[in-house]
Order: sequence, then structure tokens, then C-alpha cells
Amino acid sequence: MMLLLMKYALCVHLIYSDIVQRSREELKAIREPNPGLKPTLAIIQVIEEILRLNADSRVHGIFLHLPQSFLSKSVCNAIKPQKDVDGLNIQHFLFCNSPLDAPLVGKMAVLLGLEGPLKATLQFLLQNNGMMVQTHQWSSKHLDTWSSGQFLGVVWYFQQQRAMLYCLYVFFSIYLLFVAAVVICQHVVRSSRRWIQEQQYQPWRLRPLKLQSLSPVPSDIEISRAQTPKPISQLAQEIGLLPEELEAYGNTKAKVHLSLLNRLQHQPNGKYVLVAGITPTPLGEGKSTVTIGLVQALSAHLKLNSFACLRQPSQGPTFGVKGGAAGGGYAQVIPMEEFNLHLTGDIHAITAANNLVAAAIDARILHEATQSDRALYSRLVPSVNGVRCFSPIQMARLQHLGINKSDPSGLTPEEVRAFVRLDLDPEKVTWQRVVDTNDRFLRKITVGQANTEKGHARQTQFDIAVASEIMAILALTDGLADMRARLGLMVVGSSRNGQSITADDLGVTGALAVLMKDAIKPTLMQTLEGTPVFVHAGPFANIAHGNSSVLADKLALKLVGEEGYVVTEAGFGADIGMEKFFNIKCRTSGLRPDVVVLVATVRALKMHGGGPNVTAGVPLPKEYINENLQLVADGCSNLKKQIQIAHLFGVSVVVALNVFKTDTQAEIDMVCRIAEASGASAAVQCHHWSRGGRGSVELAHAVKKVASQKNHFQFLYNLQDSIVEKIRTIAQKVYGADDIELSPEAQAKIDHYNQQGFGALPICMAKTHLSLSHMPEKKGVPTGFILPIRDIRASIGAGFIYPLVGTMSTMPGLPTRPCFYDIDLDPVTEEIKGLF
Amino acid sequence: MMLLLMKYALCVHLIYSDIVQRSREELKAIREPNPGLKPTLAIIQVIEEILRLNADSRVHGIFLHLPQSFLSKSVCNAIKPQKDVDGLNIQHFLFCNSPLDAPLVGKMAVLLGLEGPLKATLQFLLQNNGMMVQTHQWSSKHLDTWSSGQFLGVVWYFQQQRAMLYCLYVFFSIYLLFVAAVVICQHVVRSSRRWIQEQQYQPWRLRPLKLQSLSPVPSDIEISRAQTPKPISQLAQEIGLLPEELEAYGNTKAKVHLSLLNRLQHQPNGKYVLVAGITPTPLGEGKSTVTIGLVQALSAHLKLNSFACLRQPSQGPTFGVKGGAAGGGYAQVIPMEEFNLHLTGDIHAITAANNLVAAAIDARILHEATQSDRALYSRLVPSVNGVRCFSPIQMARLQHLGINKSDPSGLTPEEVRAFVRLDLDPEKVTWQRVVDTNDRFLRKITVGQANTEKGHARQTQFDIAVASEIMAILALTDGLADMRARLGLMVVGSSRNGQSITADDLGVTGALAVLMKDAIKPTLMQTLEGTPVFVHAGPFANIAHGNSSVLADKLALKLVGEEGYVVTEAGFGADIGMEKFFNIKCRTSGLRPDVVVLVATVRALKMHGGGPNVTAGVPLPKEYINENLQLVADGCSNLKKQIQIAHLFGVSVVVALNVFKTDTQAEIDMVCRIAEASGASAAVQCHHWSRGGRGSVELAHAVKKVASQKNHFQFLYNLQDSIVEKIRTIAQKVYGADDIELSPEAQAKIDHYNQQGFGALPICMAKTHLSLSHMPEKKGVPTGFILPIRDIRASIGAGFIYPLVGTMSTMPGLPTRPCFYDIDLDPVTEEIKGLF
Repeated sequence: MMLLLMKYALCVHLIYSDIVQRSREELKAIREPNPGLKPTLAIIQVIEEILRLNADSRVHGIFLHLPQSFLSKSVCNAIKPQKDVDGLNIQHFLFCNSPLDAPLVGKMAVLLGLEGPLKATLQFLLQNNGMMVQTHQWSSKHLDTWSSGQFLGVVWYFQQQRAMLYCLYVFFSIYLLFVAAVVICQHVVRSSRRWIQEQQYQPWRLRPLKLQSLSPVPSDIEISRAQTPKPISQLAQEIGLLPEELEAYGNTKAKVHLSLLNRLQHQPNGKYVLVAGITPTPLGEGKSTVTIGLVQALSAHLKLNSFACLRQPSQGPTFGVKGGAAGGGYAQVIPMEEFNLHLTGDIHAITAANNLVAAAIDARILHEATQSDRALYSRLVPSVNGVRCFSPIQMARLQHLGINKSDPSGLTPEEVRAFVRLDLDPEKVTWQRVVDTNDRFLRKITVGQANTEKGHARQTQFDIAVASEIMAILALTDGLADMRARLGLMVVGSSRNGQSITADDLGVTGALAVLMKDAIKPTLMQTLEGTPVFVHAGPFANIAHGNSSVLADKLALKLVGEEGYVVTEAGFGADIGMEKFFNIKCRTSGLRPDVVVLVATVRALKMHGGGPNVTAGVPLPKEYINENLQLVADGCSNLKKQIQIAHLFGVSVVVALNVFKTDTQAEIDMVCRIAEASGASAAVQCHHWSRGGRGSVELAHAVKKVASQKNHFQFLYNLQDSIVEKIRTIAQKVYGADDIELSPEAQAKIDHYNQQGFGALPICMAKTHLSLSHMPEKKGVPTGFILPIRDIRASIGAGFIYPLVGTMSTMPGLPTRPCFYDIDLDPVTEEIKGLF
Repeated sequence: MMLLLMKYALCVHLIYSDIVQRSREELKAIREPNPGLKPTLAIIQVIEEILRLNADSRVHGIFLHLPQSFLSKSVCNAIKPQKDVDGLNIQHFLFCNSPLDAPLVGKMAVLLGLEGPLKATLQFLLQNNGMMVQTHQWSSKHLDTWSSGQFLGVVWYFQQQRAMLYCLYVFFSIYLLFVAAVVICQHVVRSSRRWIQEQQYQPWRLRPLKLQSLSPVPSDIEISRAQTPKPISQLAQEIGLLPEELEAYGNTKAKVHLSLLNRLQHQPNGKYVLVAGITPTPLGEGKSTVTIGLVQALSAHLKLNSFACLRQPSQGPTFGVKGGAAGGGYAQVIPMEEFNLHLTGDIHAITAANNLVAAAIDARILHEATQSDRALYSRLVPSVNGVRCFSPIQMARLQHLGINKSDPSGLTPEEVRAFVRLDLDPEKVTWQRVVDTNDRFLRKITVGQANTEKGHARQTQFDIAVASEIMAILALTDGLADMRARLGLMVVGSSRNGQSITADDLGVTGALAVLMKDAIKPTLMQTLEGTPVFVHAGPFANIAHGNSSVLADKLALKLVGEEGYVVTEAGFGADIGMEKFFNIKCRTSGLRPDVVVLVATVRALKMHGGGPNVTAGVPLPKEYINENLQLVADGCSNLKKQIQIAHLFGVSVVVALNVFKTDTQAEIDMVCRIAEASGASAAVQCHHWSRGGRGSVELAHAVKKVASQKNHFQFLYNLQDSIVEKIRTIAQKVYGADDIELSPEAQAKIDHYNQQGFGALPICMAKTHLSLSHMPEKKGVPTGFILPIRDIRASIGAGFIYPLVGTMSTMPGLPTRPCFYDIDLDPVTEEIKGLF
């Protein structure tokens, strides 16, 4: 008998060694091409943790170590199959006949010398499969009572893989331990493999939504409401996002975790398509609808992965005169009311962060003005339970001041004074409050007039929230650490002796990062045809760079895959939005564009050709309604110039003519002909507004073709050029100015910025979008003008200098009859009326 | 042969009639006790709709009517089992042996004369189960070729129910149609039954989170972070919410649909527990922690359903001096940083809505001042495509003005003038802008100083966002229609001839409702022990009523069930928060409290007994650290008075002594003894801060006992009493004043409000919370004072008049060293530091 046992023991041992060795080798083989994988087996003792561990992509396997009373079905089944290394999950194991064809039911299993969870686990497994189980302390006297007929065969059957792991005669409980270890080794290998599979790029399984376009085209909100969006979690799954990378905000919006960038870091980017426009009329020429129509065509009709990256619109104009910004007609982001209202709260977060800085500035000025150095110091560095210490952000300020001390009692009176007094000059505070409402009465205000503010009133202003530097930072940052650093660098004003004072100096950086921690994640939505869209950031297009976020573009470029397309939009005309896209956004992100889509309309071209003024809210003059080939031909000068601007950067252009129902075939043909003669690689007409993606298929084909050709992207200037040279380069090469002219203020600011070390930042021109020049009324291609630089400002956190060409309004107003007169909510159906 | 067929046909027909009749009767029987059920069978032709219909609780069954090519497994399986009336979902049907024991595989089925989806469906089902299928046009010549051996038996097997629906011999295809109809009838019955079951109240299956409290107690953020919250969808399921009633905002917060109120309308309410406090020190005495500790004890330890309903805190103080408001120690809402920051954006929505009204006011004043009647009229009622018409909100204004005309061209010049000119007096604008930041410099400001505002500058102020009347409306409304109506009623100022001007007059009501459409849904979160919490609304406790929302309380009272408990908190001391809870909130909601929990601390009692001043940020004097029974005994006067106030309303009181570590046993015993001698039904000590729910078990038992006793709730005054009488009643009976004294302004306002028809509104006193009197320094129970009423204001939309007793600050400031110095975000772990 003992001999027999020894034989089995040897046999088991050999199998054991073999499997462990193989597991080791397999793991090594898996890890070599996947250095990111560190197989992690979590041993847990708290039930609630299971769900958390299921969701934690860093954990590859779960081994349950539970008291027997906890081994209920529900507990075992809580474990995610992919992580179930001990096969407890009921759906993942199956006892079937042993290789020796001995059925399990009715057989006896004897567990010897086993204690604790392993005993409980095996007992549970075996009994659950119809076996009788005896458990004994280890004692040789029992061995005599078993015959070899009582052996049992245990076959592990693994979901979908039918891998027989081992077959084993159970006589010695000690080998059960071996076996358990072996199984766990094997399953860690398996789990790791599954983890790697899951982490890898997943091909899309996009199921577009059918679109049945009506004629005449209904209102935007009617079209949006007539289409039922896919649950956002479904869309996320279709495009290869993992459930743990998604944070739903209701059923139609979700934030996407930045960890995706890390997971897909080795995945090549897709093609990068920029949608820009010719110099527009005040009505806008439809860049957003072209962008959305293009991705609808690419994804739903050409079956090519594509992503639109859009700016989040300010809520102010939604209730003012402009209406929404979710596209229009049959090229929209849905649900359009979600897109146009609070979305996922990013602009609200920016408002909160921006205004915390403002409140901190004025409160600090007041506190410094009304307290002695000593009082300030004892309040700023208070004794808590008898201990005084600097907070980390205060340590940073000390270092900034060149004071290398960490004991608050060790500062000299001079050092205390330098530490406690920012000495902000109220006249030189550059930070403004913001609000996401069109509130013209906040354009110039006096604050601090209450008695409690003790005479420290000063004049300031509110801007619309999207004009906040924090919005520009959100659009340019590449992650949390970078955002936090940029927030700290924001200059809020100058001290009385001319030093720049930053958010770091105010001690508010950490709080700003906390307020912005969710806003940094792009929001996933969908087009009318069920294709994916990122909505993220929406900086002003004049005092900032007017482009959606670097992070959204980066995430999208990974998600679409090497053969896919990311279509992103630049605000205003190409002379502004595209120039900033290249010189600022691409420089920051390191991304390179593959093609520019330049949007033109017959309407805008006629204006450039000498047509009468186009004004919002006033019926269009007849020149714009009837055919007029001469105006079109003359106006194409602007189109040609904008094409040339793109070529300055070495990027090819596809002209997208956004067709209106009043355009004639002759006009359309003429524009396309002239565009191609002017150097466009292609020029096509687009009917996305009336027909959705189907109406943009031709554009999609053209973009696909041109994007596949090599280009020679280059920046227009070097950062090392002087500020004046950089401005002059843009003015001459892009706007066509003869030269620039600096006001004394502008010249003084340049000297100041050079002195503060900000000279090597890129330039973000604040110029009207209604003309290539600084004069909105000059259409076509103005020449022979000198570009006046009225003043220069800086967004140090965002990382650019912005020269002001003329007066820029940073706060829109409400007209006599704002949109809100037509907006309403049906209290029963909860449907929104009147949004457009 | 034909005879045989006829026999079968008869048999089938009988079965058919029988089943249809039975279905009809069953449906009738189901509908009688459930008048809300209108069995709805959706016939759909678009695949994408399946998911939407799955989620639509108004649809009880789905019948797929698809071209054959669409009948893929994935399509069939998309249908939710509960709605699968034709049994297409693969997991729901199973062909097994017929009653005659003839296996299906290899058998032939002949489908005769069938067309379209039914043919495709049956063919698919039969082939999928191994049968051969022939399809033929109807023709008798085929009948000869079948023998009776070819019959097949079809047994419908329904998930979990194993109900054999019918057994049928298929010879005549016409009967297949009958059969299909019969099956569908049966399944509609079944679906309806399931729908009713699902709609009914579900007993809770709450799985509390284990709490391991440490000593010394770590910081709030450390405690919060050490506990992993359940996925919010899991908590929702545990407490009987349907998936379609939930809108997740990330994984730890979700909004709950108001449709729940309708679904559970016949469910009796649970017990309604109010947590109020004695007159507090400036540090607060822990009402929120008592509230959270109590529900942790009730749900996690006594296993009684319970819900806490809390106010959403303003974000301003989080970065100022107060810190967060999610409770503290081991009685917290988690994750506390989510609770304290943007949450689900409700306060941001209020800010947006409030400031849209403000912008509309000033813009309107400017436009009226700079335009003729005619110009205003042509802009307000423009010609769109040649048609002029009033918008619905403009029609409302016309009716308000008594002008019963709907044709814009039909108004007389006088009527036009009345319509276009609100004639707001800039001096009498009462609407203020708000911001959710502690920004003291906005306490008094001058707006409109830019040239574009043409000299219409005026002085005004910003309040903290939670002071907006819209917040008070959110807290008091009972649904969308009511909220929309209240928003329209908000008075923003007076015209030059003394008429109240409302949001309706500005035309902005619909836009406000749209901005608030998500905010109206309460947010579900959880305590440290995994028990449910609603966070919703947080109106100021002085100029408004300081209570969380009526809607959250109503939802919670349904969810906890008849034997459950809803614990809600009233701001400030009981003399203010509780009085307003009874006289304003309960009057509006129709809900009646079952018991008041009155929170006291030894610290506050010592202060009332004559102890030295307690000041935030300054170490406590020794009287508060060492035992001092005399101070405690004397201070209990305040406790006794607050108990008496509750008794005025006929509600019993449980005193909860929130124990601090410096309290001695003698002090604790004394408070409990005096409390019971003063009329409290019970007085118990609470240790929730250091021990969680376990530390509040005694309180939970006391609350359970007292809440089960009958009480005799009554209001303190009738709405029909005059404004002066109502104020006097509160002043004398609650505060203990000898009388009130009205300033001339206050008297004038009363006359004005009476004249405008606002005299029957309840009163919301704006008084300091630091004393029962209007003098914060008077502790204990002040007597012999006259309460001065400085001014009176009105929140007509919210529905109360608020007399000002002294000066109320509606905008906190930042101290010299705000909390934000300690707050930071770890960019790698994304963990927040320094929140408390």
C-alpha cells in the first residue's frame, strides 16, 4: 500500500514541478513583449473588496481566502471570470468524468490533514458535485480503509478553453497543496494572458445608427430628439474602451479616463485631420457641421474608424443670440441639449477655479493692507496643537524667494516680510472673474464697495467663462501633473516692485487642481449616426487659441487605430484658428496634422467678392439668394489666400464647399474649379446638413486620399525668435500686412515679458476673425496695411503671449429678444423646446 | 386525411379560444388593482430601438417584426427577457421533446402559406433546433405528401417558470398564426405581471459596509478614503430602485428619477425624523454627524431601512474656513470629496439660472432705455419669414396685462407700450447675482461701467450661490411643473409705478426650467457603512429656510417602506431650522414629522451656562476642557427651551448628546438627566464620531421607540393671520421676545406685500443662529427683549416672506489663511489631500 502511495506521490510531484516550471516560462514569455505587465495576485479577505478588485485593471487574479461559512454561491460568483484564479466561480468549473471514466457522483473523497480555506474550498467543490467528502487529521491508520477503487479524477474545465489542466489521484493531502499551488500558477498565467489581451487595442465593432433624413429639414432639436442615442456604455464598448475607463454621466455622456493613453501607448496614431475655414461672415460658415458630417461619412458610410473632437460651447450664447453649437441639420452631436447645457460640468469647474483665484487675490490685498507682518505671519503659519509648520505650497514660495529654511521660527523679519507680503498692486491685477452668462453689465465693474472691505474698492471686469486662462490650460495640458504645474504658473498680476505674482504665490494651486480633477477627462458623446465624438475644452478663439483639447485628440488618435481618422476643428478663419492650431497646439502636443479641410460657402465668397454686408438677424440681401458668378469668382481670392496659408505649414488642403439650398450648380462648380486651380488637393461639395454622412461621402473619400499622401509639416516661426519677430512673421506671412506697429504699451510689455523670462513663448494673436486684416470691414484679401499692436498680454500657465490687435470683447451681451423667449421645458414629457 | 386535419384544426381552435379568453381575463384581473397598468405591446421595426424599449418602463413587451436577414442571434438576444413576448431571445426558448416523445432533430416542418416575419421567425426557430423546414405557398396538393409521423411537438419553455404553454400539431399553417397570436397574448399577460411585480415596492437587500474604527480617529479624508464605497448602481439595486430610475454620475453618485414617486405612490411612507440642535457655538455641534450616525446605526446595526437626507453644501466655504460638510469622523458620506465639490452640478445649475435672470434684468433696462416702443416691439416680436407672432411666454405676459389679443398687429400703441416696457426701476431691483465662491469683494459692487452700457451703471451685489431664491425653490418644489411655475413667479424688482416684475415678465422662465431640469433630481450617495443618503438642495438657513429638499424626503419616505426611517436635518438651532421645517417645509410638503432628535453638546451647554466666548480658530478656554458641572447645569436652560419649542408643535423629542472626548461621565449623566426632566422622551449619548453607527445604537433604539408613539403635530400659526401677527407669534412663542418692533421700511414693505397679494405666505425669519434672541452674544434663554424687524423681503417663487432681524451677510469671505493652503491633488494617485 505504501509503495503504491509513494508511486503516486512521485508522479504528482513530477507533474507539479513540470507545471510550475512551465508556468514560470510562460509568464516570462508573456512579460517580455509586455514590460507593463507585473502579474499581481491579490489575496483578499473582505467580501466587499471583490467588486473593487474586479474593476481594478492592475490586479490580474483573485484568490479567495474565506472562512467556510462565507463560501456561498453569491460570493464565489462575485468574482469576475477573468480574475478567478482558483476557479471558484460556479460558471467556470465543471467536474466531469475523470480520464479513467469514473463518474464523480457518489464517489468518496478523503481530505487529509487539510485546514482552513483550502479544506473548505475543496470540500465545497467536491460536495457540490455530488461527492461524499470525509475530512481527517493526518493519520496513517486511515490509509488502510481505502481501496484504489475510491480514487477520483478531477478535471478542471475552463470556460471556453476546455484545457485539461491536470489529472490527479488524491491520496495524500499534502499533494492537494501542491496541486492548489499548481492550479494557481496556471491560472495566473492564464489571467495574465487575458489581461494582456484585454489591455491591447480592440478593433471597433461600431454599429452606426440609421438616419432617415426628411425634407424640408426639421429644426435641430427635432432632428436630435427623433434619433435615439445608443447607451454611451455601448458606444464605448464598440470602440474598444474598457468599462473601467468610463465614467457615465447619465446615459448619453461619459467621461473617459486618461489611463487609456497609458494602456494604448504603443498603439500607432490614426490620421489627424484639421477642419478650418475661410474668413467667415458673422453667421459662421459651418465648420462644426462639416466636422460632424465628415466623421458620420467616414464611420457610418466608409466604415473607417473616425472620431470628431469638438469644443464645448459656452452656455452664455445658448441663451443669447447664437444658439447651440452641436452642429446642425443632419450633422449633429446628440442629444444636442446635453451638449449645449451643463454637459459634464467642465465649464462650471473652470468658473469655480477661476473665481477662487479672484477671491483669493482681493482677500489677500485686503488682509495685507490691514495687518502687520507679524499678524499675517502668525495667521499664515499658525500654531496647530503647539506645532508651527509651512504647508508644502508655502515651502514652494519660500524657495521661490530664495529662502532655504523650513522652520517657521527661523525666518528673519525681512524674510517674514518677503514671505507674507505678495504686495500685489491693485492697479496691476490682470486676473478677471468669469461667469458663463452673457452679462454685458459685468464688462466693467467696481468691486469692494461694502464697508467690510474698508475702502479697497477697485475697478475690474468679468469675462465669459471660456475666456479664462484655465480653459486655455485645459485645452493644452497633457495630464494631471502638467495641469497642476500650469495652474501654479498662472500670473495674476504684479507686485508694486514689478514682480509677477502667480497662483502658486497665492497658495491656491492645489485647490485649483482639485476643482479641475474631473474636467481634465474628455467627454464622450455621439453623432446622429452613432459615431463617437469627444467634447472637451473650448478656449476663446481670439484671446486664446480656440481649439479643442490636446488630450481629447490624443485619446482619439489612439482609439481610432492606425487606419482611422481624428477630425478636429479650429475656431474662426484659418488665418487665426489654423495658425494657432499649428504654431501653438501642435507645438505643445507634438502631434502633426495630415490634412486640412478648408470650409467655404458661396455666401462668404460672395461677401469677399464685394457683396453687401451680412448681418445676424437681418434677412440676406438678394445677391446671396440669386446666382452671381462674378461675386463668387472675385471672392475666391480669400479662399486662395487661406489655402496658401496652409501650404506655408506644408500641409495639403481639401476644400469642403458647404452647400446651401440657394447655391446654384454653376456657382458650386466654379468654387471647386478655382479651389483646385489655387492649389487645393481636392475641392468637393458637402450636403451633410440636409443628408447627414451620406451627404459628405465625397469629402470623406477626398480626405482619405489626401491624408494618405506624405506632407512636410513645419512651424512658421521658431520659439527663439524675439517676440516682435514672431508677431511680424504672422502679420506678414499669414495676414498679408506690410509690417506691424507697436504701441508704447505693447513695447513696454514686451520688455517686461523678456525680463520675466517669457520671451520664448509662442504668439496667440487676438485679432478680428471677420477679415484677414485687423479691420473687420476689409473683405477678400486686404493688402497695404500696417497691423497695429495695441497691447500685449500673457497667459503664462497656458503658455502663450497674446498681442491685442484692436479691442476684443470678452463678454457677449444679450440682445433685445434673446433666444430664451422660445426655450421651454415640457414638465410632463421633460422635452426641451426652442433650443437650436 | 382531411378528416384528421379537421380534427386537429378544431382542437387547435379550441385551445386558441380558451387561451385568448383566459389571457383576457387574467389581464383584467391584473389591471383591476393596478389602474396604472396599460399593457402596451410595442411593434418595432428598427433594431436600435430594442435597447431603448428595454429601458422604457412604459413598454411591457416587444414583438420583433424583422426581415429574415436580421434575425441574428445578437438581435434576438438584445431583447430584455422580461419583454420578450414572442420568445425570440435564445435563452428563453427551448425546444424539447414533444409530449409524444418525438425528438425534433431531423424532423421536417412544413410551413404553408406563411409570409413575412412570422414565416422567417418560425423557420429560424425550427432550423435552429435541428429541424428541416420546407416552405410552400398554400396548396392542397402538398398535403398528400405528409404522413402523420411527421408531426412535430413544440413546447415553449419559459425562463424559470417551466410553464408549458401549449402543445400543438402543426399541419395547417393558418393555425400557426393562431398559435403565434395565442403565444403573444399569453406573453403579454406574463410581461404585464412581471411589469407589475417590478413596479411594486421591493424589500431592501442592503449589504452594509464593515467599519473598522481606529483610535485615535484619523482625519476625515483619510477615513473616507480608507473605505471603498459600493458601486452606486449596486446600492440602488439593494434599496429597490429600478435601473431605469438611476442616472449614474461616475461610480459613486447617481441622480434618481422623480418617476419613482409615481411608481410607489400607493406605498405608505416611513417614519419621518428631524434632527435639530440647541443654540450652537460658532463651531457647530454636529447635527450632520448625528444624522449620519443615526442612519448608520438604524440600517447597519438595527437592520431597519433608513435614509439620511442632507443638504448639498456650498463649495465656497470648502475652500474658506469651514471645510466640508459630509459629516465627520466615522459618520460621513463618502466619497467626501465628491460630496463637498461639484457633486452632480446642482449648485452650478442654480448659479447659471440665477445669473441668467440677472443678465436679463440689466440688459432689459438698457434696451428699454435706448429704444423707442416701436423698435422694442419690432425686436421683441420680430417677423420671421414674414410671420409675426407672440411666443407662449409673451402671451402669458399679455394676459397678465389684461390684453386678450394674439395678433401682434392688433395691439394699440398703449398696449404695445405696456407690453414692451417692464419699466423696471433700477433702484428697486431686488434680484442679485450669485457665485459659489467666498468672494467678499462682491458684497457691494457697481455694474455697467463700460461705455457699451451707456451710463446705466448701478450698485448691486453678489450673494453666495446657495442664497439664491432658486435654491429655496429647489428645496420646496414637488416636481417639474411646480418648479417651472415657481421660477416664473419669482419677483426680481418693481416697476417705476410699483408693480412687481417677475421672471415670467422677463420671458426667461422656460430657460430657467431647462437649466434646472437635472438639478431637480436628488443625488444618491452612501454613508461610510454603505447605507443610502440623498443629497439635495441647501438653501441658506437665515434668508431662506435651511432645509434639504422636499423631493428627497418624499422619495426616501417611499423607499424605506412603512417600517423604515427617513432622517433629515434642519440648519441652525431648533428655534430657526426646526421652526422653519415645521411651518414652511412641512406645510408645503404635507409631510408630518414623527420625532425630533435634538442635538446638544456639553461644550455648547457650558457656553449657555456662562462659559467664556468660543471662537473659531482660537484654542478652547479651559472651562470647555475640564469638568464643570455648574456651567453644564446652568446651560441646560437653552436645551429645555428648545425642547419646549418642539412641544409647541406637538412633536416628541429625543435628546442626542454628541459626546466629545473631553466630556466627563458626570457631565454626560447630568445632561441626560436634565433633558429627560425637561420633557424629552429620551436622552442618550452618541459616539458616532469615534465609532460610527455602533456608537449611535442607543440613539437609534430611542428614536425607534419614540417615533412609534402617536404625536399631535400642529402648525404654530395660520397662513391667514396677518404678516405682523405671524412674526409676533414666532418672536414671542419661539424666541421668547416680549414683542416685535417694526422699522418704517418694514411696515411699508408689509403694506406693499399685502397690496400685491402676498400676505398669506408663511414667514421665514432671518435671525442670528447664535442666540434665541437677535443678539448673538445673549446665550442661554434671553428674556425681556423686543425683536426689531429691520426690513422685510419676499421670495415669492419659493413662497415665503422673510423679515430681517439685524444684518445678514449673504457672502462669506476668505480668512487670511484659507483652507486651500492645505488642499492638493496627487497627480499620480489622483488622491486629494487636505480636505476636511
